[in-house]
Amino acid sequence: MLRTHTCGELRSSDANSEVTLCGWVQRIRDKGGMIWIDLRDRYGITQLIFEEGKTDQQLVEKVRTLGREFVIQAQGLVVDRLSKNDKIETGDIEVQVKSIEVLNPAKLPPFLIEDDTDGGDELRMKYRYLDLRRNIVRKNLLLRHKVSQQTRIFMDAQNFIEVETPVLIKSTPEGARDFVVPSRMNPGEFYALPQSPQTFKQLLMVSGFDRYYQIVKCFRDEDLRADRQPEFTQIDCEMSFVEQEDILNMFEGLIKHLFKTVKEIDLPEVPRMTYADAMKFYGSDKPDIRFDMKFVEVNDLVQNKGFQVFDDAELIVGINATGCAEYTRKQVDELTEWMKRPQIGAKGLVYIRFNADGTIKSSVDKFYSEEDLKAIGERFGAQKGDLILLLSGQADKARKQLNELRLEMGTRLGLRNPNDYKVLWVVDFPLLEYGEEEKRWFAMHHPFTSPKPEDIPLLETDLGKVRANAYDLVINGTEVGGGSVRIFQKQLQQKMFEVLGFTEEEAKKQFGFLLDAFEYGAPPHAGIAFGFDRLCSLFGGVDSIRDFIAFPKNNSGRDVMIDSPSSISEAQLKELSINTL
Amino acid sequence: MLRTHTCGELRSSDANSEVTLCGWVQRIRDKGGMIWIDLRDRYGITQLIFEEGKTDQQLVEKVRTLGREFVIQAQGLVVDRLSKNDKIETGDIEVQVKSIEVLNPAKLPPFLIEDDTDGGDELRMKYRYLDLRRNIVRKNLLLRHKVSQQTRIFMDAQNFIEVETPVLIKSTPEGARDFVVPSRMNPGEFYALPQSPQTFKQLLMVSGFDRYYQIVKCFRDEDLRADRQPEFTQIDCEMSFVEQEDILNMFEGLIKHLFKTVKEIDLPEVPRMTYADAMKFYGSDKPDIRFDMKFVEVNDLVQNKGFQVFDDAELIVGINATGCAEYTRKQVDELTEWMKRPQIGAKGLVYIRFNADGTIKSSVDKFYSEEDLKAIGERFGAQKGDLILLLSGQADKARKQLNELRLEMGTRLGLRNPNDYKVLWVVDFPLLEYGEEEKRWFAMHHPFTSPKPEDIPLLETDLGKVRANAYDLVINGTEVGGGSVRIFQKQLQQKMFEVLGFTEEEAKKQFGFLLDAFEYGAPPHAGIAFGFDRLCSLFGGVDSIRDFIAFPKNNSGRDVMIDSPSSISEAQLKELSINTL
Repeated sequence: MLRTHTCGELRSSDANSEVTLCGWVQRIRDKGGMIWIDLRDRYGITQLIFEEGKTDQQLVEKVRTLGREFVIQAQGLVVDRLSKNDKIETGDIEVQVKSIEVLNPAKLPPFLIEDDTDGGDELRMKYRYLDLRRNIVRKNLLLRHKVSQQTRIFMDAQNFIEVETPVLIKSTPEGARDFVVPSRMNPGEFYALPQSPQTFKQLLMVSGFDRYYQIVKCFRDEDLRADRQPEFTQIDCEMSFVEQEDILNMFEGLIKHLFKTVKEIDLPEVPRMTYADAMKFYGSDKPDIRFDMKFVEVNDLVQNKGFQVFDDAELIVGINATGCAEYTRKQVDELTEWMKRPQIGAKGLVYIRFNADGTIKSSVDKFYSEEDLKAIGERFGAQKGDLILLLSGQADKARKQLNELRLEMGTRLGLRNPNDYKVLWVVDFPLLEYGEEEKRWFAMHHPFTSPKPEDIPLLETDLGKVRANAYDLVINGTEVGGGSVRIFQKQLQQKMFEVLGFTEEEAKKQFGFLLDAFEYGAPPHAGIAFGFDRLCSLFGGVDSIRDFIAFPKNNSGRDVMIDSPSSISEAQLKELSINTL
Repeated sequence: MLRTHTCGELRSSDANSEVTLCGWVQRIRDKGGMIWIDLRDRYGITQLIFEEGKTDQQLVEKVRTLGREFVIQAQGLVVDRLSKNDKIETGDIEVQVKSIEVLNPAKLPPFLIEDDTDGGDELRMKYRYLDLRRNIVRKNLLLRHKVSQQTRIFMDAQNFIEVETPVLIKSTPEGARDFVVPSRMNPGEFYALPQSPQTFKQLLMVSGFDRYYQIVKCFRDEDLRADRQPEFTQIDCEMSFVEQEDILNMFEGLIKHLFKTVKEIDLPEVPRMTYADAMKFYGSDKPDIRFDMKFVEVNDLVQNKGFQVFDDAELIVGINATGCAEYTRKQVDELTEWMKRPQIGAKGLVYIRFNADGTIKSSVDKFYSEEDLKAIGERFGAQKGDLILLLSGQADKARKQLNELRLEMGTRLGLRNPNDYKVLWVVDFPLLEYGEEEKRWFAMHHPFTSPKPEDIPLLETDLGKVRANAYDLVINGTEVGGGSVRIFQKQLQQKMFEVLGFTEEEAKKQFGFLLDAFEYGAPPHAGIAFGFDRLCSLFGGVDSIRDFIAFPKNNSGRDVMIDSPSSISEAQLKELSINTL
């Protein structure tokens, strides 16, 4: 070892020891007679001290040639500090240095290696290896390591086996776009990278593995939004001989374990909400229940009073922005404009203000009497000082728009503290959703999800009404995990493929092995997968998953540090039997 | 849960409990009055019993419709068995069944789901999900899980952080062939799948992560031999502020921990051998030291005695096949033919037989006196009953050929028991090797490996003589891990690229980010990677790594179960801006 101790290790009890430390020069303070260096490594910071007169003059001169981020080895004596620094763990001591070796000099970094850096996003991505030196970023990856450790501890204790499923698999048309890999040995043919190990984990159940998990990389070639990465990590799980209730209990256990061990939070029992209720009361299948502000429907109270907009609407629905009566006209107008942006697309926003002095003011006073407005207020449970905001229109659209407004108001009112965690199961998802563009039905979860047994007859009569044994885990309004009870019988799986518009041949070509497997004794099974990057970012109280990935890609799918993707040689293309267009 | 217990759980103490079990019908024995079913799951086998007269007749009839591998749920009473079966853990009890539900019927499997199966390799690969039901295969994957658990336990305790490095990276020309992934968003450009996370783990050292590890999938598009897979798993590790000695000690610790916890073997201190000695005494850089049979060189004893073949040879070298003097002429001839096969390519084999009666017989009696032969025997330490086998020719070739002979004799003499483990460090590898075909120097390990400091001047004068700070871990003659101290200074790395024939531009294009990183304060660092599949197969005492991979590919890189790789649609190709030729 080039060192006897790390930079986070020395304490008062080490005083008078001869030590050798290695690390990076974080900061140099040169007061003429005295020079201090903060020496940094992963474990902490130790103060080095050089005293003119006391320290060898040649050494002092050498120290004055050092710069930020130089890598040095320093040998010296641990001494108690006169004035302790209680902000760092090694703050009781410093090291009187006797010799220094410069292991590697450093150019001045293009941005400050400090929590509060002056580097922009792009620059920090290009020099990600320097960005990773910052405490704040390193802590994110340490947190990630801890979450994965604790996940494994829980899963192992529950008798789950981690099995590695293959990365070079087969392209399937259903779902998102695949990344593909040309096969040199099989010209004209391609592997695909897995969007999830779904079929493999089901096959492992057919194999009798009983309880499987894997922390695994998955891939989706999607147009990237701020919060998506082409490669991401899943905690992927599957169990046999279970029902939905067993999965919910088992993985509520996992989530509680993680909150306890990673965040020291005792999570209460996780409430459950049906998809139908989530949509009705929050306009979202992933409601943020850190705050209430539930949707209230008022069709019966507001229609047929002469206000055409409401009369024409399928749904009139609103929220009570508690305590917001003092919003100025300007603020309400600004909110209305915000709702009218194309991203949301509301036509307008109706407000009813319950002033502190007991008066009521609305943007539709023309059509509604004070009695009318009071009745509405009562349904919302509005108090003096509250502000009711109403949207109207086609029901689904109005709910989606109101969801945006609710979240925005929650944010503005400070009701969405990232360190306040509210966890929720959303259950009873629809099995299918209709693609208006494609004019066909799609699996809402995936084609292997089981309908609720009592809804199976509806597969013949009313596809939109079939509920699935599918569930999502939602934390603070973010979907963190999702899964389902699987189909495990060939007939039902074939029926499902038929509903999804697969011909028998297509189904056989794509999933023949799975249909075959179901004929050789498939057990009832169910599973779930968690977005690991997302889970880590939630535990870190940060919105972006990028901060929790060591080497993320940008929104064009590029790694700007290594400059990838890049062109490859003609010879490589030829060997792979492909051409670029 | 569809069960109250697993099939491996019930004991005498559970007698008189009502239980519900789920599992697969392993075997049915129908003796008329009595029917027994062995019900199997991952955890074990439990005997179900049905007695005509006692058991409901309808149930008996239902039982008679069951077949092998049906998935059933059985409910009944645990009773002590009259005749215990001490071969299975549940052998003290059986379950008197009261009701059965068929959860899923099963077609007759295409091969027997037994340890001793009648299924050939190809059939079992096509139905891998059934093959995985066999005890012997499941145990391999359970072993794999245990090895990965114990690896993580050790690494975590040593303060290593697991960091996930990206899978979509950049193609590099050095090393084996890359698998590539066309980028839809960057037409004409490609990602590559990592052959190892080498540069990323070095960047993590530059970032100050200090101790990194990862159990990680890697990819090589090579022509597959029996023992290679296009995707394989590595235990990948890197440390900062260390020297070679520290790596050897740390990872000797890991290997000892794994032997202790997985195999209950206390491994003694791991011996070290230089590459030069390994080649001189074993003709291999991965000697199997479970048995001795070291090479002995006899040029000085056998040359200039009139035997032209030896006189012309650069090297005459042999082994003592202890106790093999009784090999018949036929056996020696057969061995000679075996050595002459093109795979080995020896020109011939000279033997000297030290008979039990004290006489000496050789195939070169014509040229050598008994005194000559005795002198050779003495150098080998040959005793009565021994057989010396000599090869001659160009030194490197002769050693390689003799290595094959030594291993073969070891096998024939039963000296290579897979459950006898001998671990070895091979150190001081050459930095470079010359490619005769390409007429240039290649990195023996990889371009980031550091030369021994004292050998750096040889980079200017004698490339073949430069030794590297590189090391391999060898178990029973198989390379299980390898690594090196890395170059961490830009100048030396540039020099290395120059030696490898990179132009400055090429080096910059491929590894510019790494060279840049070295300028911002790179610490001294070193690392190692272990072949995880190989390690598991060694612990399992099995030659093929395929048995330790859940879903392996065949020698053409195909997954015959899912039938991949396969063609993709024209639309997909177009989106990716590529054509197949």
